[in-house]
Amino acid sequence: MIEVNDLKKAKEVEIFGELAKHDHEQLIFCHDSQTGLKAIISIHNTVLGPALGGTRMWNYTSDAEALHDVLRLARGMTYKAAISGLNLGGGKAVIIGDVDKIKNEALLRRFGKFVESLNGKYVTAEDMNMTPSDMEYIAMETKHVTGLSESIGGGGDPSPVTAYGVYVGMKASAKKAYGNDSLEGKRISVQGVGSVGMHLLEYLSKEKAKLFVSDYNEGRLHSAAKKYKAHPIGLDEIYNLEVDIYSPCAMGATINDNTIDRMRCKIIAGAANNQLDDEVLHGKMLASRGIIYAPDFLINAGGLINVGIDYLGGWSKERAYRKTEKIYQTTIDILNLAEKEGIHTHDAAMKLAKKRISDIAGLK
Amino acid sequence: MIEVNDLKKAKEVEIFGELAKHDHEQLIFCHDSQTGLKAIISIHNTVLGPALGGTRMWNYTSDAEALHDVLRLARGMTYKAAISGLNLGGGKAVIIGDVDKIKNEALLRRFGKFVESLNGKYVTAEDMNMTPSDMEYIAMETKHVTGLSESIGGGGDPSPVTAYGVYVGMKASAKKAYGNDSLEGKRISVQGVGSVGMHLLEYLSKEKAKLFVSDYNEGRLHSAAKKYKAHPIGLDEIYNLEVDIYSPCAMGATINDNTIDRMRCKIIAGAANNQLDDEVLHGKMLASRGIIYAPDFLINAGGLINVGIDYLGGWSKERAYRKTEKIYQTTIDILNLAEKEGIHTHDAAMKLAKKRISDIAGLK
Repeated sequence: MIEVNDLKKAKEVEIFGELAKHDHEQLIFCHDSQTGLKAIISIHNTVLGPALGGTRMWNYTSDAEALHDVLRLARGMTYKAAISGLNLGGGKAVIIGDVDKIKNEALLRRFGKFVESLNGKYVTAEDMNMTPSDMEYIAMETKHVTGLSESIGGGGDPSPVTAYGVYVGMKASAKKAYGNDSLEGKRISVQGVGSVGMHLLEYLSKEKAKLFVSDYNEGRLHSAAKKYKAHPIGLDEIYNLEVDIYSPCAMGATINDNTIDRMRCKIIAGAANNQLDDEVLHGKMLASRGIIYAPDFLINAGGLINVGIDYLGGWSKERAYRKTEKIYQTTIDILNLAEKEGIHTHDAAMKLAKKRISDIAGLK
Repeated sequence: MIEVNDLKKAKEVEIFGELAKHDHEQLIFCHDSQTGLKAIISIHNTVLGPALGGTRMWNYTSDAEALHDVLRLARGMTYKAAISGLNLGGGKAVIIGDVDKIKNEALLRRFGKFVESLNGKYVTAEDMNMTPSDMEYIAMETKHVTGLSESIGGGGDPSPVTAYGVYVGMKASAKKAYGNDSLEGKRISVQGVGSVGMHLLEYLSKEKAKLFVSDYNEGRLHSAAKKYKAHPIGLDEIYNLEVDIYSPCAMGATINDNTIDRMRCKIIAGAANNQLDDEVLHGKMLASRGIIYAPDFLINAGGLINVGIDYLGGWSKERAYRKTEKIYQTTIDILNLAEKEGIHTHDAAMKLAKKRISDIAGLK
């Protein structure tokens, strides 16, 4: 039986426990009764620079769920920026609520004021359920926002750059697997043909890869199949398909206990976030099966590189692509490091990212 | 029986619920594993200006206790600044931990960096377990600190100014009770003869009041009694003593269910914070017994006025005392308002404070 005392204990706010787990620096709860704003900004690490990360809006079922999400996402941004060689730290923001019910200019500008009050320690950008025009409202109140439309002086849509990074990361993986990085004739399945997936298909079709595509949106699926002469396949079928390269570009956690034994591929290289359901367990399982896994947070960093350069100043499309192209060499380095040390590739990427942060922390 | 589901529910982080209760704007959790810093900064309201409030260090038994404390204290600062006519909002900070074990330069400067990153939205000052030299460490990292020693350009020790405010608030209450504000021959009990209590005794003895003093520190008690020809009385005895004025200048919540029926005084006017154990219940009880209660957060605001003027610029001792002297008229106004509207005096003071905030919010 559960005692009332246990209940009281459970009620205790364990925020610092949560922050200590993965060494988060700062957590900011923002509240405004007038606009109904409830937002959490998480700053994971600012050793390399200001904490950059998007703002997402989501109708979380509880504050705890929002907290969990924002802590996890902020942490991911730290390592993504670190592995990409950007002078940026990791952060993230979530606005809690039903987009259709509460999103309006006043709420977004109030949120912008909170971001501004952090004096550039957190830099925001577009994320789930936020549109370019939403970001413009936020930008009315703070200069610490990036990824704005090209038309108003920003670096604009990051998805083509993200796709480019995935493409070069995939080629680097092919180089490791096959000795050369040509994708000609390679069988490649692309899971999800949203904005990034479509741009990726463009690169792959130019290289004359044999393409397979899946998407829950039938219209999008068929237009992608038609445009790039790709074979449409079923949502579940994709896991069994014999291919050279599987490219998850939709939801996360598709590499899991249910799928991993069905996979018949040599390489996994995609744009989705958090592809490994369990980073340690499934990272090891892929390695033991001889599947080359290009770490997601490394090869999908093109979008971050684009907004990061935009924020740090001196953005040009060319600069963003040039910096993103370095993902090729970093992928090679990480695959070699993993091989040399007998660790899985995600682990190797994290090791490099953490080393960069601790090296720079040591400089201070 | 308590279901496991209930337990899960109880575990949920109810931060936004806490913020909504009293409409707090912002809550910042600051964490640094290297120095062991765990601090919470609460910003209650910034309508009137930056949120000013001290930083206290305390070995809270839980994070929840620290949270409760910082939320409550920040809120108090909002109304204290508002009723004092300062262009300041309300905030507070707590550093969690054992002073003797964790307080050092690195931790204090790390905390200062967090304060600095808020860009002046929160302004800190000395509070419990923080010394002037601790504040100087914080000031190495942020300009948003006030109440520094006079020797390094600050407004210095606020307790004489606090005592002066209590003194004029007491005289205003006497004016209301007796038709004139002379304290000559009045029987006054001063509970607690720390720094503020001692300065208050100085004013009262000059007016030739008949003084009674209590303090748990025997040495301090006897030196106060000797210096100001005051009668030392017992710690509990003070509640039964027949006096004109009872002046609580030690711990809070001394006006409670156990003491209120024992009190034989016409006026309560002291420096302690949160004198009413229950603001509504005990405020009403005093009113119904015909005891004039000078609201604590109004008459003990001299210290805040001193550091507030210091922060806002143009501090001089004269300016601080001149602004503090206005407590006299505000006390008169509030006692009259309470009488006119048939409400208790704490309620009247809160009403005026909240009205000022909403009036100014309307300007924006």
